[in-house]
This record gives sequence, C-alpha cells and structure tokens, in this order.
Amino acid sequence: MKGFAMLGIGKVGWIEKQAPQCGPLDAIVEPLAVSPCTSDIHTVWEGAIGDRHDMILGHEAVGRVVEVGSLVKDFKPGDTVIIPAITPDWSSIEAQAGYSMHSGGMLAGWKFSNFKDGVFGELFHVNEADGNMALLPEGVDIVSACMLCDMMPTGFHGVELAQVTFGDDVCVIGIGPVGLMAVAGAALHGAANLFAVGSRPKCAEVAKEYGATDIINYKNGDIVEQIMEKTKGKGVDKVIIAGGTVDTYAQAITMLKPGGRIGSVNYLGSGDYVKVPRVEWGCGMGHKVIASGLMPGGRLRMEKLAALVQHKRVDLSKLITHRFDGFDNMEKALLLMKDKPKDLIKPVVVL
Amino acid sequence: MKGFAMLGIGKVGWIEKQAPQCGPLDAIVEPLAVSPCTSDIHTVWEGAIGDRHDMILGHEAVGRVVEVGSLVKDFKPGDTVIIPAITPDWSSIEAQAGYSMHSGGMLAGWKFSNFKDGVFGELFHVNEADGNMALLPEGVDIVSACMLCDMMPTGFHGVELAQVTFGDDVCVIGIGPVGLMAVAGAALHGAANLFAVGSRPKCAEVAKEYGATDIINYKNGDIVEQIMEKTKGKGVDKVIIAGGTVDTYAQAITMLKPGGRIGSVNYLGSGDYVKVPRVEWGCGMGHKVIASGLMPGGRLRMEKLAALVQHKRVDLSKLITHRFDGFDNMEKALLLMKDKPKDLIKPVVVL
Amino acid sequence: MKGFAMLGIGKVGWIEKQAPQCGPLDAIVEPLAVSPCTSDIHTVWEGAIGDRHDMILGHEAVGRVVEVGSLVKDFKPGDTVIIPAITPDWSSIEAQAGYSMHSGGMLAGWKFSNFKDGVFGELFHVNEADGNMALLPEGVDIVSACMLCDMMPTGFHGVELAQVTFGDDVCVIGIGPVGLMAVAGAALHGAANLFAVGSRPKCAEVAKEYGATDIINYKNGDIVEQIMEKTKGKGVDKVIIAGGTVDTYAQAITMLKPGGRIGSVNYLGSGDYVKVPRVEWGCGMGHKVIASGLMPGGRLRMEKLAALVQHKRVDLSKLITHRFDGFDNMEKALLLMKDKPKDLIKPVVVL
Amino acid sequence: MKGFAMLGIGKVGWIEKQAPQCGPLDAIVEPLAVSPCTSDIHTVWEGAIGDRHDMILGHEAVGRVVEVGSLVKDFKPGDTVIIPAITPDWSSIEAQAGYSMHSGGMLAGWKFSNFKDGVFGELFHVNEADGNMALLPEGVDIVSACMLCDMMPTGFHGVELAQVTFGDDVCVIGIGPVGLMAVAGAALHGAANLFAVGSRPKCAEVAKEYGATDIINYKNGDIVEQIMEKTKGKGVDKVIIAGGTVDTYAQAITMLKPGGRIGSVNYLGSGDYVKVPRVEWGCGMGHKVIASGLMPGGRLRMEKLAALVQHKRVDLSKLITHRFDGFDNMEKALLLMKDKPKDLIKPVVVL
Repeated sequence: MKGFAMLGIGKVGWIEKQAPQCGPLDAIVEPLAVSPCTSDIHTVWEGAIGDRHDMILGHEAVGRVVEVGSLVKDFKPGDTVIIPAITPDWSSIEAQAGYSMHSGGMLAGWKFSNFKDGVFGELFHVNEADGNMALLPEGVDIVSACMLCDMMPTGFHGVELAQVTFGDDVCVIGIGPVGLMAVAGAALHGAANLFAVGSRPKCAEVAKEYGATDIINYKNGDIVEQIMEKTKGKGVDKVIIAGGTVDTYAQAITMLKPGGRIGSVNYLGSGDYVKVPRVEWGCGMGHKVIASGLMPGGRLRMEKLAALVQHKRVDLSKLITHRFDGFDNMEKALLLMKDKPKDLIKPVVVL
Repeated sequence: MKGFAMLGIGKVGWIEKQAPQCGPLDAIVEPLAVSPCTSDIHTVWEGAIGDRHDMILGHEAVGRVVEVGSLVKDFKPGDTVIIPAITPDWSSIEAQAGYSMHSGGMLAGWKFSNFKDGVFGELFHVNEADGNMALLPEGVDIVSACMLCDMMPTGFHGVELAQVTFGDDVCVIGIGPVGLMAVAGAALHGAANLFAVGSRPKCAEVAKEYGATDIINYKNGDIVEQIMEKTKGKGVDKVIIAGGTVDTYAQAITMLKPGGRIGSVNYLGSGDYVKVPRVEWGCGMGHKVIASGLMPGGRLRMEKLAALVQHKRVDLSKLITHRFDGFDNMEKALLLMKDKPKDLIKPVVVL
Repeated sequence: MKGFAMLGIGKVGWIEKQAPQCGPLDAIVEPLAVSPCTSDIHTVWEGAIGDRHDMILGHEAVGRVVEVGSLVKDFKPGDTVIIPAITPDWSSIEAQAGYSMHSGGMLAGWKFSNFKDGVFGELFHVNEADGNMALLPEGVDIVSACMLCDMMPTGFHGVELAQVTFGDDVCVIGIGPVGLMAVAGAALHGAANLFAVGSRPKCAEVAKEYGATDIINYKNGDIVEQIMEKTKGKGVDKVIIAGGTVDTYAQAITMLKPGGRIGSVNYLGSGDYVKVPRVEWGCGMGHKVIASGLMPGGRLRMEKLAALVQHKRVDLSKLITHRFDGFDNMEKALLLMKDKPKDLIKPVVVL
Repeated sequence: MKGFAMLGIGKVGWIEKQAPQCGPLDAIVEPLAVSPCTSDIHTVWEGAIGDRHDMILGHEAVGRVVEVGSLVKDFKPGDTVIIPAITPDWSSIEAQAGYSMHSGGMLAGWKFSNFKDGVFGELFHVNEADGNMALLPEGVDIVSACMLCDMMPTGFHGVELAQVTFGDDVCVIGIGPVGLMAVAGAALHGAANLFAVGSRPKCAEVAKEYGATDIINYKNGDIVEQIMEKTKGKGVDKVIIAGGTVDTYAQAITMLKPGGRIGSVNYLGSGDYVKVPRVEWGCGMGHKVIASGLMPGGRLRMEKLAALVQHKRVDLSKLITHRFDGFDNMEKALLLMKDKPKDLIKPVVVL
C-alpha cells in the first residue's frame, strides 16, 4: 500500500509499504478523512521525536473498518469509526493508575506516527480496537469528526487540568486550533471572564464565537499587564496553556491568583527548563498548581466528546478553514500547517 | 418597620416590628426586589421548620445597604447588593471544613425566615456582611438578580454534587425553577444528552431553551423506562434531583450506570425514609454515589455566579414569569407560589 | 482435574472437570494457598447470585503460573502470583471510566465463582493475566498473601470511599475480616478517633491492635447513642460499613456530622431497600454522602497493597486464626466460615 | 510588656512594647511554651520578608488565654490553647475559596512576626479567636504541642499536596523538622516505600522511627540515581519537598513517574526561578503535577492534628532535641536554629 511519510528529518514523500497486520485485538482501518497536525511538522522539520525513516505520518483520522482481530467484539468491517491520536494499552499499570496516555512509558500511549505508522496511508493499524475506536455518531460529519481525534480532546484536557468551573476567570494562552478548543471547553465548563491570548484575526474571531469575552493581543503590550488591568489587579483563577514556549509559564504564574491552577497541554519542543518565577509563585507557598499533560485517548473519551458534537454543544466546523479532496492533496494540506497562512486554523483532507 | 410575615402555621399577614440592629460585622439592607420561594410555602402552610410566630418571610432579595457595622470593610451605605439565601458564620468549624451552609449545625447557615426575620420587610439584617453580600455587577438587572439568591446557586449545586462533566448523559428530575437552573448548569458544565423530567409545558419550553435535549413526561409512562429506552438500556451517568419526594431516589438509582452519581438539592418535607433499592444499587456495591446538600452561600459564590449572568452565560430572565411592583403585591406574589398556576415559574416583586 | 464446587443451592462437594483453556491474554494457575470467603457461603447457602451447578468455588488464592497465553508479556510459568478476587476487562468502557470492577456490567469484574469456576480447583483460569496478576513480593508469605485478594482491598476500599484523612473521627461498623481491614486502613490513612463496632472478643482484640481507639458493642446499648456520647454529641466525620444489613445505613447516617461520608463495602444479600432517614439526613440537604462499591481489583492494586504488607505497614497474619494443609481440608475450612466459631477470623488452606 | 524582637535585619534583642489590644473577635494570650523556627532565622538574618523594626518574633506557641473580645463565644480567660502559625481571616474571599492561608492576599494568613508582633512576648494577640485557637486536648503536653503550630501542619500539608495514598512510593526531600513530619505523615497516609533524603544522623534516625524505609544521603551520590536504582528505574509516585532550593524541583521531576505529583512546602528564600526540566517533564505532557503551598491554619486544623497526637498516631516529642526553661533562654534557643548543631531538630522554651 502507499502512504505519505517522513523519509527522514526535513523530508517527506510517498512511499510503498506492506499493509499492516491485524493481531487478535486489533483492527485495520482505511481513512475516510484525515487532518495534519502541528506535531507532524515538529516531527519532520524539527526532529522533535528523533529521527524516523519511512514512517507514515498522521494521527488524526476518521475511517472505515476493513478487518478486525479474532478477539474484537464490538466492531466489524464496514463500521465508520473515529480513532483518537492516543491509543493506550488498557491493561497496563499506567492505565490502571488513570494515566492511560502513558501506558508503557511516559507519552507512550501516543503510537501513530511515533512508534508505528500513522494514518496517512491507504490502511492503518489500531491496537486494542474495542478500547480505542468509537463509532461515528449519526449527525456528525467526517470532516468535523477529524477534530475529535486530537484538537478537541487536547483543548478540553487543558480545561480539565485547570479544573475550570462555574464563575472562574480563565485565561487561555494560544488560540491555534487546540487553544480554540480550550476556549470552547472553558466556556462549556462554566468560565465567566474568558481571556484568549493571540493575535491572528481569524483565530480571534473564532475565539469570540466560542465564548471568549476578551482577546488579549501581545502586540498591544505585555499580556500579564493587560490581564491584571482587566481583572483590576486580582488576576485569574485558571490559566490554560495551549501555545507559547517554556517561557510562557512565568507569565501564567504571574497572572494567577493564589489557589489558582495552570492546565497546560502545549507540547514543548525546545528549551532546557520551564521557569517558574519564585516570588510570583509565593516563594513556593502560593498554592499555584501546575498541571500539564498529554490528552487522554481511547474509546470512552471519543464517545463522550462525540456526543457533545452530536448534540451541538460545540461546533467543530469552525476550526476547519481548508478542505481538500483526495490523497493527492495530502502534501499540500501538510505544508499548510508548516506555512501557517493568515487564514488557517485547520485543514482536512477527504479521501 | 413593617414586614410581611408568617403569623403562625397557615397564616400570613403584615406586621409591625422594630427595625433590626446592626452588630459590628453586620449590615442593614432595604430590599429593592424580592422573590418568594416554595420554601416559604412549606414554612407557612406545611410547618416544615416548625411553628413560628410573627416571623418576616423571604430569603431572596437584592437590596441597598443602609448601615454597616464598625468592622465591615468592603461595603458602605448606598451599595446595591445581592444577598444569598444562605449566610454562613465563616469562622465556624463547619465552614473551615468546607461546609459553610452547616455553620453552627446542620442547615444552620440558612438564617433568613428560619432563625431570624427574612427579607420581606422594609429592612433586613445581614450577618458577616463582608463575607455574605456581593455587589450587583454592572449589566445585571435587579429582577434577574433575585434568581442569584437561591434558584441559581441551588440548581447549580445539583450539578456540582453530581459532578457533571464533558460528555455526561444527565437526567434532571424536576423542572421547577431550581430544576431549570440544574438544566442550565448541566449544559454549562458539559452535559451531552440532557433529559429533563417534568410535565408543565411552560417549564418544558424553558428547559429546552436552557439546553435539555429531551423532555421526559411521566404522563407518557414510567420515567425510568423512558430513560432506559432513550439510552439503549445503558442508563445515565448522572442524575440531579430537583423535585419529587423520598420515592424519587429509587428511580434515580435505577436509571444510573454503575459508577454514576446522584446530586440532590431537593428539600424533602415529608416521609420517614429515602429508599434506595438494594438490587439496583448493586447489592451495595454498584458505586452509585448519593450526594445531596443545601446550596453554598456567601459572597464568593454570589460573585462567581453573578459573573456568569453578567457575561450572558445564563439568562435568568427566562425564569421570571410574573413581575409585580410595590410592597402591596407581596402577598399576591407569595400566593402564586402556593397556587402554582400553569404558566408560573417564578414571580418577582420590585419595591 | 478436580475442584471443590457448589453442586446446587445448599450443596457442595468435589467434582471432576476439564482443565481450563488458556486464551492469548490469559494464564492458567495452580493454587498454593486459598481462603474461603463469606461470599462463598452466601453463594451456596443463600443463593445470593442465583443457582449455579457444579461451579468451582473460591476467589482468594495465591498460586503458581502453569501456562500463559501468546500475548502475555510480564509473567511466565513458575511465577508465584497473587490473584485478586476482581479481574476486570481492562479495555472496557467501564474500566476506562475508572470503574473496572463493573467492566461489562455492574459487578461483572467479579468472575471467579460467579461467571466462571473459582480458585478451589487444581488449576484455575485468569483473564488478562498481565493486568490481573501480581508477583508475590519477597518477604510476604503465601498465607498472609491470601488476605490481599479480597479482605484487604475490600476493607481499604471502604476507607477510600469514606475519604478518611488526617484527624478524622471514624466509625467502622462490622469487625469481621473486612471490617478489621477497614480499621487497619483507616488508621493507616490518618484517622484519629477510631470506633469499631462489634461484639466478638477475638475480633475486638485484633481491632485494637489495628488501631481502634474504642470498641462499641451493641450489647451495651444503641450504637448511635454510644457514639454520640463518646463524641460529645458531635458525631463522626466518616463511617465505614463493613457489616450489618440494609438497616445499618440509618444508624450510619444518624451518627454522621453534616458534610460527612459513608463508605460502604458490605454486600447486601437481602432486603428490598436501604433506608436513609429523612430528618437525620438533613431533609436531603445535610451533605452526608453515601458512597459504596465493590473492591477495585487488577494488578496495580495488588502490587500497591502488597507493598504495604512487605514494608510491614499492615500485618495480615493477625487475620488468620485457622490454618489447614492440603486440598482435603477445603470443606472443613469452608464450613468454618459458615459456622463462624467464636475464635474465627479467617482460615487459610495451604496446598 | 517585654518581647524578644527583630530590631532590624541581622539584629535581635529584648524590647519593651505596649500590650496588644483585644478587638471584639480577638483574644490576648500569654505563652506557656514557644519554639523558634527556621523562618525566624530567614526573617532576621536573610531579610526574607523585608526589613522590620522592633517586631516581636515567633509564631509557634501554646498559651493561656488572658482576655477575649465581646463576640468570642468558645473561649474564655484561663483556657490553655494551641495557636497555629497561620491565623486566617475566615470571611475573606480567599478563605471561602478554600485557601484561607492566602486570606487578604498571597501568604497573608501568616500574620505573627510578619504583619504584626509574634508570640515571643509576654502577651500576644490572636485575630478571630473562635476560628483560630484550639483547646489543648487532655494528654498532650505543652512541649510537644508547640510542634502542632507549624511543623506538623506544614509537613502534613506536603503529604496532602502530594496526595499520598495506599501503596505509594514516596520520596521526602529534606529531613529537618518539617521533612520529618512529612515522613510521619506519609507513613500515616499509606506510603509503602518511603525514601527520606538527608544526611544528618540524628534526623536520619528519627526519619526511620517515623516510617522511612530508606535514607538517601546525597553524600553517597546523586539522589536521583539512588532513587532510580532502588525503584528499578521506575521512579516514585510522589515527592514531598521539605528542604533544598529552587534547584531541588529538577531532581524531584526527574525521579517522578508520569502521573506523579510533587507536594512542596519548602519556603524558597532565594533564586529567581524554579526550573522544571523540559524533557523529564514529558515535554510538558507527562502529567507530573507540581503543587505547593503554605500550611492551612485555623482552629479545625489544630483540633484534627491534635487529635492525632492525643491518640498516639504521631509522637511529636521525637522532634524536640533541646528544651529550655524561662524567657531568658529565648535567644539561646533561637540561635540554635541559626547555628544548627548536629544533634538539633527543634528546641522548645517553656515559660
């Protein structure tokens, strides 16, 4: 079969590969729609996960089941399914401890285009199919559903890590697609004031539609100062970090009230240390909790988030600014994520 | 001063009383708008809290500060404030344990029209003013704000007790004003399917506007069976009880998944026992948690919920079906809550 | 192979059966030491789980691995392992939701001597071996280790459900082996006053050794009154129910402070309803949470509890009052649990 | 009255001051036993909280009530009371949010020898006496009880922040008096393996008595490597930081499992940033939570911890290596904390 792959650091292209094998617990799926992710860009052009050769890219896909293993009970060929970016080993110690995304080791629940071929091929392999796929619910289209694989679960996990609840003043730093989902999730979990930090007009517009009360643009001055002014010096209850760098945490800590929480879902690709400013952190005694983590994957997570989309609690179509048709446009779509034109949030390729 | 009072069980009327005294931590407030509550009906006509003589009724009010005690720092005469139904003693052991509504004894955070005169007088007394009043935020009108005193904090507490979160299937039993607030709160805390159990058309209409996906009418058959059918036999993740009787819990337990939670905010005025059905409760091993409680009161709670109203996350005006002007209409408004005409949700009296 | 079985309601005896088959994820284990449980008595003589024919009994065993399936990675023949009474399907929706004991349906994580043959045979079958067995740690003997299968995880789960923490006043109702483990667990999770309700002198003695500060004997009067007297009318923060009947909850609710929690791990074999007294429950508003559930099983749970035994945080040998050697004594050991002689806590049969 | 005071940075001595005034909610107390704290050293010799002139030192005291304000209900002159180092304003917004130690601003629940005179005078002032003092329970001596003011609540808060529970592998970094309390608290909240990092023999000996399973001495090599070796490369579930510097967090993060938590109660007196190592933190996605904070104070906290001492769950006398009698020895006791002789854990001065 053919697949669109990382050939080596800095290089992508089409390759031919053997079709994946289906173990007793697994499924083989053909993609119906896929979306490239900023992580694919980090993987290829920044070598974020190290060197990889001829590894098929992609971890956001909706597909049709082609084959299932002998122990799979709940799915059959022909089913249309959502496959999360994170597909844990559910019987692992880590999953039993509630951290399935780290099954088998830190971040090791992330398998597609990391430890094995991703979803940008004619076929792809899903481990523990009963635990890691969800039926596409009626009324959810395959294009929007691609946002259920990574963007929505990651952004919403920021809300969970920050423990946003009724009446909280929340700041979301970063309004790329994950940040926008954090905005939507924070609004959907009870945020009152909801500050969204970003500068791209298209993203700012969608942030407002998702419930942001204020857009904080760093071009207008220091973001901490802007937040402090808008909150009359009190700061915010929660900060969700969905963009920026290792230096973003110092800003987040500074704008937090004592007793506040940071929920961070930003992948930090470079820098030696995240720096927590001692004084603003209350000399280590200010109860400003820093929680961060990879999105939870698996079937239940997909089912629950998909139900929110089905019942129109969240409109994922707002994220999709570019739609392509056919395998041939895979590269074009991927390069969009690299070049980030002004009007881009996320592209989807329908196959 | 005059006040509209419970004269004794089954009897109400206007009385003359001495104006309340202001202690060093307290405030004296004149009401600007008030709302009668079903609890007032229970108090007078069912003797729910025992006999009371010449006790001024009411615990939902927005008012203007007339006097503050010498130790009050954050409020001054002239301030327009929201006063919650529950006004705890904040330094009590119970408040320190996180249960301020039980400060000084079970339910003893409830003082208005219970241990002291309520808010249906020309003036009323607020204990620990700095901890128990909140400034009315700009953009929130005094009529809607009356719903912040009890309806919204109680309904939203049902959501908190049930721990509703992203993608949960939720059933709200009862769609009077508290139940409607539970519906709005569940939608605002991530519910996917949201079943609202009730029969009055006006309430059903507002429930839909607040985010209910289905109205379950007991006139159409057993509510548990209807829920089980709609969930394909799986049941729901969470149940919020905001109406019914001691027998409602058996239905709630039966429709819950293992691992589910009941959040109950319904005042149970009669019956000896709440009955939990043994088998449906998994022979005591099904992890179906029963959590129930009185609303949290105090200043912070008011500020956080008021911020949700200010930012248009919730439109409280939908609850107010009847508006009256002037003290003289207090009795008429109260009797509405007793007679419950078809088109009633809540009345407000503007003074 | 032979096994000691339930022949039908009220009848037990030895039977011959085919040895169990090992699927790709499974293990076949021969028992080294086993312990009968009160549940076995309920199963046979009270028909608690319905009629069963020729079903091998037992769900508490330490054993030696004889065979593992092709997908098992972490165990091999010859390993000495602890097998929990509850062996979930880890990729199930329920396990993903954090309730692995209800994988596949309420209580369905309990498989041994329920849906399949138990551990009182020459061999037994373990599903998802990597997720459901733990190596016996050095320094833990096989006799004590039998208490890790059900007694300790169940008793300790009562502590978890009640959320016992530093300085709590706790009452444990029932001081059979599970209740004694709840006492030990409560002491090991920060209980201050620790009231143990029971009457058998041997159990009372061990309860004291495990950290009970007071023994409350119902023969000396109403237990609620005794607790209220000892707490100067305040009641306790937490109640763990590890014995009694559907009527025990009314006592527990009555002795709880507002804001308190019940953690119940008692299997309720009869009665239609658990009855929660309305007034003592604060008319449904007292924040007295009722949490109950089946023990969590699986490998991680076994490893963590076994580590506590290994490091001498808990001495399980105190529970074992009767030791037998050889398969031939299985019936004698089982009948002890039925007859409950005065000096019995738990018997173990070493094979 | 006279008091032992900070005269300015680097200088201490006896001063004469007016006796404190008693407001309506307050109490005036004469100390019966006091203990100097490392914070007093930081305050005087490092200027940790800025310059202060003629401020009486000390925040750990047991005393006798001399006077109470008109609104105080639960205490009277003559009562022997424990006074926590942190005495919050209970009606503040922060206390209502669950962070009473930050009432009125970050860390502002800490008043003694910070915003007002401390306890090393003939008399001292307690704000909100009903909420901030606890009766000394029978059977707890005043010398041990001094450890209830700061050492025990701080060390135990590390356990709470780290969320230590049954079977956790825990590392406590620092075994001064707070670290030793963290060791005792971790053992009392279910730790299995309990690694204590420190080098002073006296402290190591007491750590073992409090439940440490291993002493990790940095003189024997890198502490992270030692921990990784002892845990077979897995790392620990929880780290409690009770000593060290801003650089200690990098070690803590590195030795944590994914999904682990740091609970930090160490006052960070210098350094610009706490540095979190990016890669070991899972590139921001490893779910290694960093929680830190000042101890909770107030009456309930004192009562609950004192109950643990009363019931012999913890023996505080092990901490007290030096006892002095009489006001005249205050300076000697304080200087001990500055000089830290080998055999010192904590001194107490009985008055």
